[in-house]
Amino acid sequence: MSKIGIVTGGGDCPGLNAVIRAVAKAAHRRGWEAVGIVGGYEGLLAPQKTKALVGDTLNGLLVRGGTILGTANQGKFSAKVGHGKLRQLPTDLLEETKRGCEQLGLIGLVSIGGDGSLSIAQQMFEYGIPVVGVPKTIDNDLAATTMTFGFDSAVACATDALDRLHSTAESHQRVMVLEVMGRYAGWIGIYAGIAGGADVILIPEIRFSYGSICAKVKEREARGKMFSIVVVAEGAREAGTDFVTSGSSSEPREARLGGIGAQVTAQIQERTGKETRCVVLGHLQRGGSPTNMDRALCSIFGAKAVDLIAEKKFGQMVSYTGTGVTSVSLAEATRELRTVPLDGGFVTAARSLGICLGD
Amino acid sequence: MSKIGIVTGGGDCPGLNAVIRAVAKAAHRRGWEAVGIVGGYEGLLAPQKTKALVGDTLNGLLVRGGTILGTANQGKFSAKVGHGKLRQLPTDLLEETKRGCEQLGLIGLVSIGGDGSLSIAQQMFEYGIPVVGVPKTIDNDLAATTMTFGFDSAVACATDALDRLHSTAESHQRVMVLEVMGRYAGWIGIYAGIAGGADVILIPEIRFSYGSICAKVKEREARGKMFSIVVVAEGAREAGTDFVTSGSSSEPREARLGGIGAQVTAQIQERTGKETRCVVLGHLQRGGSPTNMDRALCSIFGAKAVDLIAEKKFGQMVSYTGTGVTSVSLAEATRELRTVPLDGGFVTAARSLGICLGD
Amino acid sequence: MSKIGIVTGGGDCPGLNAVIRAVAKAAHRRGWEAVGIVGGYEGLLAPQKTKALVGDTLNGLLVRGGTILGTANQGKFSAKVGHGKLRQLPTDLLEETKRGCEQLGLIGLVSIGGDGSLSIAQQMFEYGIPVVGVPKTIDNDLAATTMTFGFDSAVACATDALDRLHSTAESHQRVMVLEVMGRYAGWIGIYAGIAGGADVILIPEIRFSYGSICAKVKEREARGKMFSIVVVAEGAREAGTDFVTSGSSSEPREARLGGIGAQVTAQIQERTGKETRCVVLGHLQRGGSPTNMDRALCSIFGAKAVDLIAEKKFGQMVSYTGTGVTSVSLAEATRELRTVPLDGGFVTAARSLGICLGD
Amino acid sequence: MSKIGIVTGGGDCPGLNAVIRAVAKAAHRRGWEAVGIVGGYEGLLAPQKTKALVGDTLNGLLVRGGTILGTANQGKFSAKVGHGKLRQLPTDLLEETKRGCEQLGLIGLVSIGGDGSLSIAQQMFEYGIPVVGVPKTIDNDLAATTMTFGFDSAVACATDALDRLHSTAESHQRVMVLEVMGRYAGWIGIYAGIAGGADVILIPEIRFSYGSICAKVKEREARGKMFSIVVVAEGAREAGTDFVTSGSSSEPREARLGGIGAQVTAQIQERTGKETRCVVLGHLQRGGSPTNMDRALCSIFGAKAVDLIAEKKFGQMVSYTGTGVTSVSLAEATRELRTVPLDGGFVTAARSLGICLGD
Repeated sequence: MSKIGIVTGGGDCPGLNAVIRAVAKAAHRRGWEAVGIVGGYEGLLAPQKTKALVGDTLNGLLVRGGTILGTANQGKFSAKVGHGKLRQLPTDLLEETKRGCEQLGLIGLVSIGGDGSLSIAQQMFEYGIPVVGVPKTIDNDLAATTMTFGFDSAVACATDALDRLHSTAESHQRVMVLEVMGRYAGWIGIYAGIAGGADVILIPEIRFSYGSICAKVKEREARGKMFSIVVVAEGAREAGTDFVTSGSSSEPREARLGGIGAQVTAQIQERTGKETRCVVLGHLQRGGSPTNMDRALCSIFGAKAVDLIAEKKFGQMVSYTGTGVTSVSLAEATRELRTVPLDGGFVTAARSLGICLGD
Repeated sequence: MSKIGIVTGGGDCPGLNAVIRAVAKAAHRRGWEAVGIVGGYEGLLAPQKTKALVGDTLNGLLVRGGTILGTANQGKFSAKVGHGKLRQLPTDLLEETKRGCEQLGLIGLVSIGGDGSLSIAQQMFEYGIPVVGVPKTIDNDLAATTMTFGFDSAVACATDALDRLHSTAESHQRVMVLEVMGRYAGWIGIYAGIAGGADVILIPEIRFSYGSICAKVKEREARGKMFSIVVVAEGAREAGTDFVTSGSSSEPREARLGGIGAQVTAQIQERTGKETRCVVLGHLQRGGSPTNMDRALCSIFGAKAVDLIAEKKFGQMVSYTGTGVTSVSLAEATRELRTVPLDGGFVTAARSLGICLGD
Repeated sequence: MSKIGIVTGGGDCPGLNAVIRAVAKAAHRRGWEAVGIVGGYEGLLAPQKTKALVGDTLNGLLVRGGTILGTANQGKFSAKVGHGKLRQLPTDLLEETKRGCEQLGLIGLVSIGGDGSLSIAQQMFEYGIPVVGVPKTIDNDLAATTMTFGFDSAVACATDALDRLHSTAESHQRVMVLEVMGRYAGWIGIYAGIAGGADVILIPEIRFSYGSICAKVKEREARGKMFSIVVVAEGAREAGTDFVTSGSSSEPREARLGGIGAQVTAQIQERTGKETRCVVLGHLQRGGSPTNMDRALCSIFGAKAVDLIAEKKFGQMVSYTGTGVTSVSLAEATRELRTVPLDGGFVTAARSLGICLGD
Repeated sequence: MSKIGIVTGGGDCPGLNAVIRAVAKAAHRRGWEAVGIVGGYEGLLAPQKTKALVGDTLNGLLVRGGTILGTANQGKFSAKVGHGKLRQLPTDLLEETKRGCEQLGLIGLVSIGGDGSLSIAQQMFEYGIPVVGVPKTIDNDLAATTMTFGFDSAVACATDALDRLHSTAESHQRVMVLEVMGRYAGWIGIYAGIAGGADVILIPEIRFSYGSICAKVKEREARGKMFSIVVVAEGAREAGTDFVTSGSSSEPREARLGGIGAQVTAQIQERTGKETRCVVLGHLQRGGSPTNMDRALCSIFGAKAVDLIAEKKFGQMVSYTGTGVTSVSLAEATRELRTVPLDGGFVTAARSLGICLGD
């Protein structure tokens, strides 16, 4: 019986298990076996660590957050040495990986990951490993696909948080600041900010000034709106400051004093004199059940990945077109980051709605 | 001060209020006044019925289901005389409507509606009324836009219902049938069916045979899966039967004996001997708060509609491109129905996942 | 190592798996083994059908609807011969059951069930089987406990449905009727009706007249409220009609023409001339994840059941006091049904709020 | 026409608007007028600030978070001078308040508040103002009522957060710490901790030691469970440290370095060597729509409050009995805090389930 493997890399993301389930179901339909690689790419190295994806193992996976395969690893496959700069894996590691796949008898490997994991997949493909990719970036910042899974779930979490802050802000006539994910691209911030009725949205693509933010708060007050809601993406920065590039984009910032959310909060309070409070959404955005949209997306991604293997279209990544699914080469897929376009629908709409974008 | 009007037509849909709010906010940002037309197009006829969209009236609208403008009417503007066949409005009615807009002093009118309401808007535009459209069809069956608002909310409702039926089906080793909306296009059915892990999905685009459905139920049983979940769109039909074309596509069927869900339920129970139960989701799909995705979509649609008025691009309808927003002519927008493509991503994915589509 | 068994009986209910998990965790903490009995009491008969409750089997059970032990059976232990009338089990069946428990080496058996399953447990106890009970009735109609698990989840489902119907009713100026569970006791109806802002609530405890219902609809119309929301419990009946006693109270009625919801809908439409629509919630109420309240309740119930076994308090059922947990004898627990008191807080509050109760 | 007033005091809480709606509906049913007092008790002082509670004002209030009456004030009625120590209001302020009620023509005043606001209500009552109370403490720490509204909603929020952290903790093999409200009483922590499957729960009632916590984390690791979930109530303290008494219990702590959640996080990471992350739930717990249970509770509380006024039972507070509603004197109601009993159902159940309580 033919056998395929599935591996998940990087930070977790709502819908990973749904992709795993879809890959397994699509494999079974073709009469193939599916095994999960445990603990990231390192599970491919001898002694291989795998989990059979059969029967009861798949029960409930469609709705379950996290990944049953784990993502913890020892760092042998660490790809990033800074934003946009990726390390070339040593040949002996690639050789060892290839041998691992052969020992497992895999006719194909589905790699679910972000730009780091997928650039490794690309190197594997170039080395002769039959791999296909499924894009995973909760930040939705991959240029090669209209949407990545996990994004809608993160936006749903952030929008729900904004609803909650709205009622408390209004009751107490306060400014409430919500820090959300988005180190390089502000998709979660602008999407959730619009969906959640924010008054100010700060994203990495637009440097902000405290003057603009406070002017918005004051303008609302002049109209009798005694509260304001501010969304701040992790990567938002004041005009004139440097862009921070260290750290992994897949790890949300923890609640801490020095975060941009706390800085913005302190400045607004000082400059407007209004009580201002901050919530850092942090890891809440990553966990939990995927939304129906993400569940559908994960399912068609997983099914398509198996189709790609059946067609021997290795080195490809599945991609969403807005109404269907196609594939692009991994090389192309990992080439560039998709940031929020400044003349695109969301930024324009936000301005038309009177939302302050900090500039 | 310039003034614009907003009117909602046809069946209600999650997100109508969110569009109304966005239109009003975008009007206010330009220093314009916004008034809601009450009770559909008929509210434009003398004596005009309007609702000022100011201050507290807009509070909470982003999340509130239904439409504060109502959709009940006396039928003067009834557009449909059958699926795809639209009536030409009498000239005196168009004249009266135009005069109504002038009496209200409207520089533009935003019409939120489905193909019926939008084809009326097109006739109004041709008659010289400065109207722009926002597409509203919970079935997502409008060819001119990648997505319509309300659809994601309806899918969320149906997916949640599938989750509920799943647990009861499994505990009791039953077949559970869920009837969802979709008279001419099966988008809700196939989307929710995939997201909800259905075993069988029946949509209007594919005539089904009971043999195929029951074979799937039996095949699962042979693998130890003693339960099955079946999604049936309202418009699904057995192969060899005629397609029903009467009735409005915007009114979900009520729970009743003769519905297709009940028919399928009875046939499965009779042919497989398995206990089979039916739930008709009906009006639950139309009501309730919009999802975050619909809230974002409604907001950018409303903002864009006001931009169109500002640019005097009358006779246009806002349209979603998958990543942003643009506009198309109303004439083009209402030309054809978008059904689920048989070779597209969703149907292909469903088959790859081993889901039975009834054929 | 000591070993205990867990068995679930009757219709499924949100939280069954959460109780199973709690029982297993509490057993493990004492160094005991826990096994699930598969397929109801019949799983105790030779050849016994069991499922080990260890390790990964327990993952995710806290939130998962249904029961991993199944409830399907062949009817050997069928207890009910009509409402309130319970069958005495034959001695040889009791003997066989006792032998089954001994063959499995059980020092105690936790039976999770409604009045039928618990009255069987009582007979088992009298026959010498070391059993304790956990009350399960989604209708909340057991006199011996302040609350049963599954009830809050069912109410949450019904309340959410009412929110959805509210927006569509208001938009379309209709009467919307929601049929909910409650064959003998109207707890779900009155609780969800109050929480969901219903205008009319019909429960089995109060015979209704169509005159009262329609007067309420008309009175609202006179105040400019053009829509009304009606909640009907399955067991509600018109004054002067007989009370239906056949059938199992644990099986929600399916959507069908003859249901009380459909009857009430037809009568309101005929008598008031207003468009009236019906939704039958049916199996949606039984399935899905338990609410946080049910999850807490299930957990303390499961923990207490194991404590009872440790203390050899057999023949007892765990019971919620409103702030904590205690136990009562099974004999006492199954003695009487708890209906909604006519002079109690909920009925009085409903009347104070101006809700029509049909009388 | 008789007229009653409604005033909300202190921090906001899910369900405030639902109580306001119920009071207004119950007043209207009696043919009375209802007015909201804006901005807390200070709205009663000349010039009075009120909001008419009629017609559209009440639409949607059942589900809307926050309070439409606001709670912001200038501090004239500040009651607390420390935990459990309440200030006596000056006679001239009481006189002014009484005159304000008379000028408004109120036959009764419903005060919705926590122990601070209710102790003021008690002083008003003693001074001759016809006031009745509705208990509001999201912490559920009022001895005179089985449950206060807002608590179930806060627990739901915390349980949802635990579900989210669970999946990310498991995927990354981490310890996740969630800080929840509860300065003096640990109800939210223990309730949500049990419902959310936490491994460690730290509450103010039980001083914790890091040794116990870390032993639990290690014990799980030894069983192959590589992650742990820790719930920390704001008021939890290490054994041997002083209890903090300053500050208001109704204000959740913001995300900051010095919070107990961050301290516990740092200590666990240092002592176990495991990656440990913290989320501070903060204001998210206060906002948002009330759960169905809170909506029902608010409705019967509001209805009962109006009944009390009709019966001239001033100086009373409505109270929940577990199955119905009654009243107690305000004097008695505010006398003592209800902390989590150490021998009660929840603590015992937590221990039986193997949850570490820090001791």
